[in-house]
Amino acid sequence: MSVALGVVQMAMSDVLEENVARAIELVREAASRGATVVLLPELFEGYYWPQAQRERFFERAHPVDDHPFIGRFQALARELGVVLPLSFFERAGHAHYNSLVMIDATGEQLGVYRKSHIPDGPGYMEKYYFTPGDTGFKAFATRSGTLGAAICWDQWYPETARAMALQGAEVLLYPTSIGTEPEAAGPMDTSRMWRRVMLGHAVANACYLGAANRVGREVVEGSEQTFYGTSFICDFTGEILAEADRTEETVLVAPLNLDDARAFRAGMGFFRDRRPDLYGPLLTRDGKTRP
Amino acid sequence: MSVALGVVQMAMSDVLEENVARAIELVREAASRGATVVLLPELFEGYYWPQAQRERFFERAHPVDDHPFIGRFQALARELGVVLPLSFFERAGHAHYNSLVMIDATGEQLGVYRKSHIPDGPGYMEKYYFTPGDTGFKAFATRSGTLGAAICWDQWYPETARAMALQGAEVLLYPTSIGTEPEAAGPMDTSRMWRRVMLGHAVANACYLGAANRVGREVVEGSEQTFYGTSFICDFTGEILAEADRTEETVLVAPLNLDDARAFRAGMGFFRDRRPDLYGPLLTRDGKTRP
Repeated sequence: MSVALGVVQMAMSDVLEENVARAIELVREAASRGATVVLLPELFEGYYWPQAQRERFFERAHPVDDHPFIGRFQALARELGVVLPLSFFERAGHAHYNSLVMIDATGEQLGVYRKSHIPDGPGYMEKYYFTPGDTGFKAFATRSGTLGAAICWDQWYPETARAMALQGAEVLLYPTSIGTEPEAAGPMDTSRMWRRVMLGHAVANACYLGAANRVGREVVEGSEQTFYGTSFICDFTGEILAEADRTEETVLVAPLNLDDARAFRAGMGFFRDRRPDLYGPLLTRDGKTRP
Repeated sequence: MSVALGVVQMAMSDVLEENVARAIELVREAASRGATVVLLPELFEGYYWPQAQRERFFERAHPVDDHPFIGRFQALARELGVVLPLSFFERAGHAHYNSLVMIDATGEQLGVYRKSHIPDGPGYMEKYYFTPGDTGFKAFATRSGTLGAAICWDQWYPETARAMALQGAEVLLYPTSIGTEPEAAGPMDTSRMWRRVMLGHAVANACYLGAANRVGREVVEGSEQTFYGTSFICDFTGEILAEADRTEETVLVAPLNLDDARAFRAGMGFFRDRRPDLYGPLLTRDGKTRP
């Protein structure tokens, strides 16, 4: 099986139709360059509105089975024969989730993952909007390998990467919206540590990994952020295969050799030597007591 | 509290007395340069004998309370006022462990950690010698902060780093013996991925981290390895503070600001947003079934 990962770094307007059209165009470009899986950024349909807390932004949420654009990406996936892990704002009953639907190359929905780790702080006030996900971590068996997909803040958590890898994930995918922190957080550029923590996941799990971030300056209700891009694809030793800069819309494509990765993963023995009998403390908050 | 971490990169002979004398000399150098914690490499008392499988190497193991050199390092710790996380080959009844005793700056033993993850493969045939550790992961409250200490192969496991951090570790320490792979493993240099995975742990846990490796070519029973050094100290964002090259004996010293690290760790919210309720799969081998 020949697999290539496309990662789309994109600048958004705050008009859904514009962003969906642009995203479709960039997915087409990735596919034309050989990508069999194409990752778009987190919540690419508009500005990253969790910069602010406003009731009206809840209107952007829709159920996965009655959604303004998911069906169009299913048709696109089928047409191009590409897998699309697609970020969207989900309404489910009275709950709202930061979600991802895995669309196989047939156009079929394989399931929904709901973001498990929800940030909160200047510039990222997501706890106001999103209920912490209840799906658990997921690896999806697709036409382009077994793909683990999690969302933005999840990418800082070794637990997320490991849980996906244990289910057989060969590629770890992270749609993202991250940028320079607003003034309240002090001067901080997390781009280097953001990349480092994911390279660590790639190595620890001997998995390929891709992260798709947005670029551009966005002002939401007087709050301002500049998203820092630096989207990338790395191999199963954490070596960078393709990377974008901090400002440009970019389509990255890299071929993935899943057989090589599997042989290397087995030979290194990381999974052979795990000690689940000693990992009980990971299910606690203080290393001791079960919550 | 002013804390500085010393990391000793060292070349070994296969004569215990020579290595102990040299290690003491290098600890003195680190202390004279301000280190309040000094980390020596794994099993610094001799060649890395698990390159080969020979019954007679078990003779190198000793009980922690009746040991050829631990007492001398306790006296040294007391004299210099430095904390010494000390690697040694432990015999406990009929079992043998790859262990570390944490010696506080008072000279007192704070406890023993036994390496949990035991490698096996060309050049690292540790499963012949070492029973997988039964102590669980540890963070020791010392005169120089709460120190997590694990051993070599443990350093590839996010579970180890997280378990230490959950117990309050502010610094993650890894004595190491790692080098170019012998011919049987094919041409492989793991030094970049070795560093990457640990930088990932530093970021994910917002902890300082130090790794002390050996250098030099060692031939054991016809098997040969060249240990690649590249010992380093990084900060709680994974930024390198000090690093050694691949060949030279080196003493690295870096000041650690544990208050800054604590403030940053709290502000980032990584520990706030963990989801222990979703981490059950980490206690399995396939992401599903409890073993």
